[in-house]
Amino acid sequence: MNLQAAMRLAVEQAESVKGSTYPNPPVGAVILDRDGAVVGVGATQPPGGPHAEVVALNAAGQRAVGGTAVVTLEPCNHHGRTPPCVDALVAAGVSAVAFAVTDPNPVAAGGAARLAQAGIQVTGGVAADEVARGALREWLHKQRTGKPHVTWKFATSVDGRSAAPDGSSQWITSEAARADVHRRRAVADAIVVGTGTVLVDDPLLTARRPDGSPAERQPLRVVVGKREIPHEARVLNDDAPTMLIRTHDPHEVLQTLADRTDILLEGGPTLAGAFLRAGVIDRILAYVAPILLGGPITAVDDVGVISIAHAQRWRYDEITPIGPDVLLSLVPA
Amino acid sequence: MNLQAAMRLAVEQAESVKGSTYPNPPVGAVILDRDGAVVGVGATQPPGGPHAEVVALNAAGQRAVGGTAVVTLEPCNHHGRTPPCVDALVAAGVSAVAFAVTDPNPVAAGGAARLAQAGIQVTGGVAADEVARGALREWLHKQRTGKPHVTWKFATSVDGRSAAPDGSSQWITSEAARADVHRRRAVADAIVVGTGTVLVDDPLLTARRPDGSPAERQPLRVVVGKREIPHEARVLNDDAPTMLIRTHDPHEVLQTLADRTDILLEGGPTLAGAFLRAGVIDRILAYVAPILLGGPITAVDDVGVISIAHAQRWRYDEITPIGPDVLLSLVPA
Repeated sequence: MNLQAAMRLAVEQAESVKGSTYPNPPVGAVILDRDGAVVGVGATQPPGGPHAEVVALNAAGQRAVGGTAVVTLEPCNHHGRTPPCVDALVAAGVSAVAFAVTDPNPVAAGGAARLAQAGIQVTGGVAADEVARGALREWLHKQRTGKPHVTWKFATSVDGRSAAPDGSSQWITSEAARADVHRRRAVADAIVVGTGTVLVDDPLLTARRPDGSPAERQPLRVVVGKREIPHEARVLNDDAPTMLIRTHDPHEVLQTLADRTDILLEGGPTLAGAFLRAGVIDRILAYVAPILLGGPITAVDDVGVISIAHAQRWRYDEITPIGPDVLLSLVPA
Repeated sequence: MNLQAAMRLAVEQAESVKGSTYPNPPVGAVILDRDGAVVGVGATQPPGGPHAEVVALNAAGQRAVGGTAVVTLEPCNHHGRTPPCVDALVAAGVSAVAFAVTDPNPVAAGGAARLAQAGIQVTGGVAADEVARGALREWLHKQRTGKPHVTWKFATSVDGRSAAPDGSSQWITSEAARADVHRRRAVADAIVVGTGTVLVDDPLLTARRPDGSPAERQPLRVVVGKREIPHEARVLNDDAPTMLIRTHDPHEVLQTLADRTDILLEGGPTLAGAFLRAGVIDRILAYVAPILLGGPITAVDDVGVISIAHAQRWRYDEITPIGPDVLLSLVPA
């Protein structure tokens, strides 16, 4: 297996544990033997458990000697709850290490240099963009900014509506698009909505499988705003923990959630508008259905723009057909 | 050159004459000699001039003998202003003919059968979808329905706005997207707007090159509605012909333009809404910019939908990044 294919396998490993590794990054690793055969794969285990490299090395055993370790993140060089991965790689006798993204965490960084000093051939930057936009996106953001990564997700008709004129909105997007949202919920740390959404839609806000059963991991459900919500609101049931944050200020919300990494904002026009105006959204996921609705109910209202010269400018970083819909991923321009 | 590559070349030929062949279809043809070398290319000439096959055969001369003709449309089998193309192909001595789309016109059809009777090996359906959605889309629609093909084009922010709250809208989309619109104008038969657009934006409505100079072909400019427009409106200048249609009824508009094939509707919310409600739009081209504007000015208002159950349902048939924007092409579901 060549390096690119091995990295793809490592990426799959990383994706499979996204959401379960906080505060550690979701990392994937693959060990190739001298002949390029896969002899071990692994992903970061929950906090306190081994990192991806160690899982993969344990699987490979002696077959790692003289082989290549392929990892989505630069192997760590510090004692946390587990010993440094670079020590494990050196001890295992691999002759080469390839990784995707350089570790931006100054405490953990320096792994590549340590490996090179130990006589191991080190290659960085393999599929770095893909990994940085994939499993590691939110964790890297947190490392670089110290703040949680906020994704605003909305479903819309191609003419920008989140509901028909009579208020009906189930469903704008397809089953495939909704399943994609549930997959993203399952790996998020928190799902945020406003009291308005709770009062109008009474959502469960859990991550569910296509058959409706709850996903293994449930993120924290967060309801933002000062209005009272009824005790029987479904968001308050026992399916997952729920936090109420009694403010309208996005900065206060994010301060309250400062220990989180990956926040999924599913708010309606009011809450989304507040977050957009505050400039605290790091990614927009627009699920755009090929339908027209017209009428007064738009997915977002006031985003703080008066004139075209001061439009909120973003950049498409991914355009992905999902079933009959299209998912537009936008990041700040 | 293999058949697929030759067809791509024929498609390019067809695209190059789109807009100039009415009432004939814009067709491209390529002649390969016995060894598969390209010995002639051609495209439909303006009405009264030779069809694509004849242009390509003339270029090939004797080298066509025993060769293959690759054509985007089934060669015609009738005497119009020019003799049947099938006669020219038989006379030229080609041994094989490959075409993309079967001619739906009962008068001209039967070309494939005639060629086969003459002992020529005939292959239909080569890249048929691509051609049917490309150069021949509007002509095929007209053949099948007897009506002009209507494309509604609009530019929008990702949140469905056609202007910022203060009314400013220049420019929502990029230069690349606007150049794409001008290319489409240059091959259309008519560009339709409402009096509202003329009064607010005072557009020229001509097809222009990136440097601002007028394109070689200019479609008819059509202004629809009952309001008076000023004599000094730019749409009334001498750059291209202009027609005023004093009605609000899309059916009346299309009746007036019944002899056209390819109509580009560039109307604002009022006119576009009327056409959408009337169900007379065959394709939507949404140029979606990665910006957020918010506010009250949406690209479309009333599309005749009250409840989600009765949404106007379309289908994406092409999703194309254009510069920083994305072009969503929708056809009826």
